[in-house]
Amino acid sequence: MPRYRLDIEYDGTPYAGWQRQAGQHSVQAALEQAILGFSSETVTLRGAGRTDSGVHATGQVAHVDLARDWPDDTVRDAVNAHLKLASETVAVLAAAKVTDAFDARFSATGRHYLYRILNRRAPPALEKGRVWWTPGRLDAGAMHEAAQQLLGRHDFTTFRSAQCQATSPLRTLERLDVARSGDLIEVRTSARSFLHNQVRSMVGTLKRVGEGAWTAADVKAALDARDRAACGPMAPPDGLYLVKVDY
Amino acid sequence: MPRYRLDIEYDGTPYAGWQRQAGQHSVQAALEQAILGFSSETVTLRGAGRTDSGVHATGQVAHVDLARDWPDDTVRDAVNAHLKLASETVAVLAAAKVTDAFDARFSATGRHYLYRILNRRAPPALEKGRVWWTPGRLDAGAMHEAAQQLLGRHDFTTFRSAQCQATSPLRTLERLDVARSGDLIEVRTSARSFLHNQVRSMVGTLKRVGEGAWTAADVKAALDARDRAACGPMAPPDGLYLVKVDY
Repeated sequence: MPRYRLDIEYDGTPYAGWQRQAGQHSVQAALEQAILGFSSETVTLRGAGRTDSGVHATGQVAHVDLARDWPDDTVRDAVNAHLKLASETVAVLAAAKVTDAFDARFSATGRHYLYRILNRRAPPALEKGRVWWTPGRLDAGAMHEAAQQLLGRHDFTTFRSAQCQATSPLRTLERLDVARSGDLIEVRTSARSFLHNQVRSMVGTLKRVGEGAWTAADVKAALDARDRAACGPMAPPDGLYLVKVDY
Repeated sequence: MPRYRLDIEYDGTPYAGWQRQAGQHSVQAALEQAILGFSSETVTLRGAGRTDSGVHATGQVAHVDLARDWPDDTVRDAVNAHLKLASETVAVLAAAKVTDAFDARFSATGRHYLYRILNRRAPPALEKGRVWWTPGRLDAGAMHEAAQQLLGRHDFTTFRSAQCQATSPLRTLERLDVARSGDLIEVRTSARSFLHNQVRSMVGTLKRVGEGAWTAADVKAALDARDRAACGPMAPPDGLYLVKVDY
């Protein structure tokens, strides 16, 4: 059975998240349904990142095994045609045959997320659901400086959902950059893998720094506490995008 | 009566356009309704650009006269609060008191539009309604070169809607740049004023150049024909944004 790598974009707003769940609509189910429509096969996709409800992607990666050896572009176009028929806000950017050694989740060596904050008095008209709107002025420079406290290998229990199923809270954070461009503050972060809700927990904590309520030392103390209760209020899913997966 | 300049952003998708029309929902009516909700006054806004149905703005400008002398920020925040209550996709970015000599439409000395084309095989998942999706590869360099044929003062009858109410078809086009950035082709254009449907007509014609059906000389011939029938198929409203107005 040929294996295909799918590069996927989605607006996560209408979905219960990436992962298939009984009684709820997910990005994974939307794609599996589209593949069923095109190839008449009931398949299971495996994705690189199990994004939460409302989280978006411009570079999600998944793999799927199909019975027939279709041309790559046929897979991409046919799945997109079926996604469109079902009015899904999901698109396959590329489909490419890969070897059986490729596993979208377990072969991934890096994951890159972008978090977008719209920092202005007026609410978003064009980007509703695509940004976190924070009307109070944030100091992006202070947020960036504090963010550097979190780089490296740490126990990220503070920044981990109580529902996180990872066996270890240890992760190595490779990048956590905060930069302002006009009214937009972009947080870019990279790691081999992240804990459940880690990015949104870190961004919510950095927002406290941006508004002057916390210092960089407070962020370090929160990390060292290894206590979920020490985390700032979690940022909403709206601003979060899975942008790239490394293999 | 103090006059206020309003800088406005909107997602034009749900509206019949900027201008108030009987029996249809417009951006102007949404704002007038929000002002009524906040100040109990029935007002008439005048906007710099009468954008069509489905056209967006990040920098529309309008003026309005109010009975009371409110602080600028109160006007901005109160109008936004009422827009939100009504679930409008419109936001006031800034409100500022101006003299009676300021007229959003007649004082404008320049208008700047952006047209965004998503040029890739996969349809947009995140930017549906915000871009013109063209799956066939377009040559942005050829489009830019052909666009330069349209710069300067010309009779733009070819690129003007049959419904255009301007007394003269003469306009001076100051900028028409086409540039690719990844899968996105951005067309940026500036003039003191544009004819009805002029930007979408020019972009639709340039797309024909991008796909190799027309040459730069064909664009020049279409302009010289001064005939609406010589225009390429008009680009959809989805990709068009009024980004800035000069005074």
